[in-house]
Amino acid sequence: PDQDAAGQARARHAELTKPPGSLGKLEELGTWLAARQRRCPPRPLQRPRVVVFAGDHGIARGGVSAYPAEVTAQMVRNFLDGGAAVNVLSDVAGATVRVVDIAVAAQTPPEVAEFKVRESSGSIDVEDALTEEQTQTALTAGRTIADAEVDAGADLLIVGDMGIGNTTPAAVLIAALTGSEPVAVIGRGTGIDDNAWMRKATAIRDGLRRARANSAYPVDLLRVVGGADFAAMAAFLVQAAVRQTPVLLDGVIASAAALVAEELAPGARQWWLAAHRSTEPAQHLALDQLQLEPLLELDMRLGEGTGGLAALPLLRMAAKVLTEMATFEQAGVSGQIPQPAED
Amino acid sequence: PDQDAAGQARARHAELTKPPGSLGKLEELGTWLAARQRRCPPRPLQRPRVVVFAGDHGIARGGVSAYPAEVTAQMVRNFLDGGAAVNVLSDVAGATVRVVDIAVAAQTPPEVAEFKVRESSGSIDVEDALTEEQTQTALTAGRTIADAEVDAGADLLIVGDMGIGNTTPAAVLIAALTGSEPVAVIGRGTGIDDNAWMRKATAIRDGLRRARANSAYPVDLLRVVGGADFAAMAAFLVQAAVRQTPVLLDGVIASAAALVAEELAPGARQWWLAAHRSTEPAQHLALDQLQLEPLLELDMRLGEGTGGLAALPLLRMAAKVLTEMATFEQAGVSGQIPQPAED
Repeated sequence: PDQDAAGQARARHAELTKPPGSLGKLEELGTWLAARQRRCPPRPLQRPRVVVFAGDHGIARGGVSAYPAEVTAQMVRNFLDGGAAVNVLSDVAGATVRVVDIAVAAQTPPEVAEFKVRESSGSIDVEDALTEEQTQTALTAGRTIADAEVDAGADLLIVGDMGIGNTTPAAVLIAALTGSEPVAVIGRGTGIDDNAWMRKATAIRDGLRRARANSAYPVDLLRVVGGADFAAMAAFLVQAAVRQTPVLLDGVIASAAALVAEELAPGARQWWLAAHRSTEPAQHLALDQLQLEPLLELDMRLGEGTGGLAALPLLRMAAKVLTEMATFEQAGVSGQIPQPAED
Repeated sequence: PDQDAAGQARARHAELTKPPGSLGKLEELGTWLAARQRRCPPRPLQRPRVVVFAGDHGIARGGVSAYPAEVTAQMVRNFLDGGAAVNVLSDVAGATVRVVDIAVAAQTPPEVAEFKVRESSGSIDVEDALTEEQTQTALTAGRTIADAEVDAGADLLIVGDMGIGNTTPAAVLIAALTGSEPVAVIGRGTGIDDNAWMRKATAIRDGLRRARANSAYPVDLLRVVGGADFAAMAAFLVQAAVRQTPVLLDGVIASAAALVAEELAPGARQWWLAAHRSTEPAQHLALDQLQLEPLLELDMRLGEGTGGLAALPLLRMAAKVLTEMATFEQAGVSGQIPQPAED
């Protein structure tokens, strides 16, 4: 990020026809975007892009979700048909959606399967999610996808996710990297009942026990208790930062990947904006550690990138304020009344 | 509002391809809109319309604002030229803007002056804001404008405001109707310093003393300590409810008018949605009394309708979720795993 552009944006906000600071967080957003684009005013967003990373998790067999694992592949089809929430919200927000099968436990259409690492990651309570080779393949996939999107003109990226059971590895990753207890990171996910909650708590405890020795090694952590989708998302987030492309983070899955990505590339978080505060408690721990304050609080917990899309219109507004509003001088509007010096 | 349509919306949300409730407040918004449109799914919003009520206030001569009163007329010109924040945010949100001069202290272009009641309302610390006749004229103006907008096809209205000094009568109206002390309702408005704050506190105290005898009579309250713009906005809000047209409330000015409007027509508040929590403390008191919970919290305090516009994309998303998302059955996605009965 470019502090000169940020300073120019702050100065411009003071000249636009409104009381200084009166647009609140919209002004902060505009300054944030100007710094990332290294120019003031920033360019209006031309090609915001959601990438949905789809992957199954062996832990889903342990009854930690309200839905059967087959839903992951069914939802990939739904994304392609345009019937999911991410499609609808993208339409309103003016973004396009790409779906990538990283580790879905079924065959998916060839156009989304190019980066498939395996069918389902391992069950992290009893086995490693990935082999070392698969971990590298997944990291390369995420990096390659980010490069391809930026090369194709994406000027804002949103990390989406789809995977039955994926809040369990997310909780383990966040607990391992924030030093939290299982009870602090467990959430209701897709809406589990008390019995599933107890199974999930046990799975998180067992996964966390397997994770502890690897907390200082982010790649090993992804391999042991993450999964191919998390590895791809983490590498995607790192590469977005390398390519100096701003990112809107969605919910607990994206935040878990972001926490790992910040370990892989400290400072990468400067390129990420937390779109919303989800109802999953682990997300709050991850954002706190990343020192990211969420923009919206809408009690959302869907994933897919939907939280990021809910925030996108505000980022568009923030950019346009800097680009299109008239200054006091241009509009012939009087400035503040000069105040006598304080006694 | 139609409780049958609300029930249909809740039932439909449970059938769409996402865990029930996982879109959080977006689901509540969709249900809210379906109930107001009396149909499920609701129609996507076709013609959201911002009406900016511009008016000056004699109290501005008392040094209660950071800006000179001439800014009101200058900003009316800026709105017409498309250079203000409300214009820019409307573009992104897909709304159009109408400006109405209700009581600007200067001549304005004929196309916005049709409903002009007077040049500036009276200085409410020492005199009535309006005569009885002017009060009726302003109420008629607001009602007529709402009717014209609904007749022209507006399916969502946003109340905007412009008027140097207008947070002072807003604070007095809210204090009078919520039984609050001056110190609880005073805010920094456009960004006043401590000396202006003390002058504003005195003005609110004096206005409130003049208001007390009229607290039970909303029309008299508008006449004594409101102003022509507040009277027009209150009548506009009542008539929007009469015409069963949903409204997004902006900040402290719109909320003060809404509080009076609810006194004029109890139950009208069912047609209003609080778009955001402004930084003005009086707005929180008004919304609490109206039992309206704000959707966004972006530290905004500009007025013009900008807070309403910030929330508009979320309402669009909420409507489209109900209209365009696939159901589990349509998409061939499996539902929740049946749970055995609890022991």
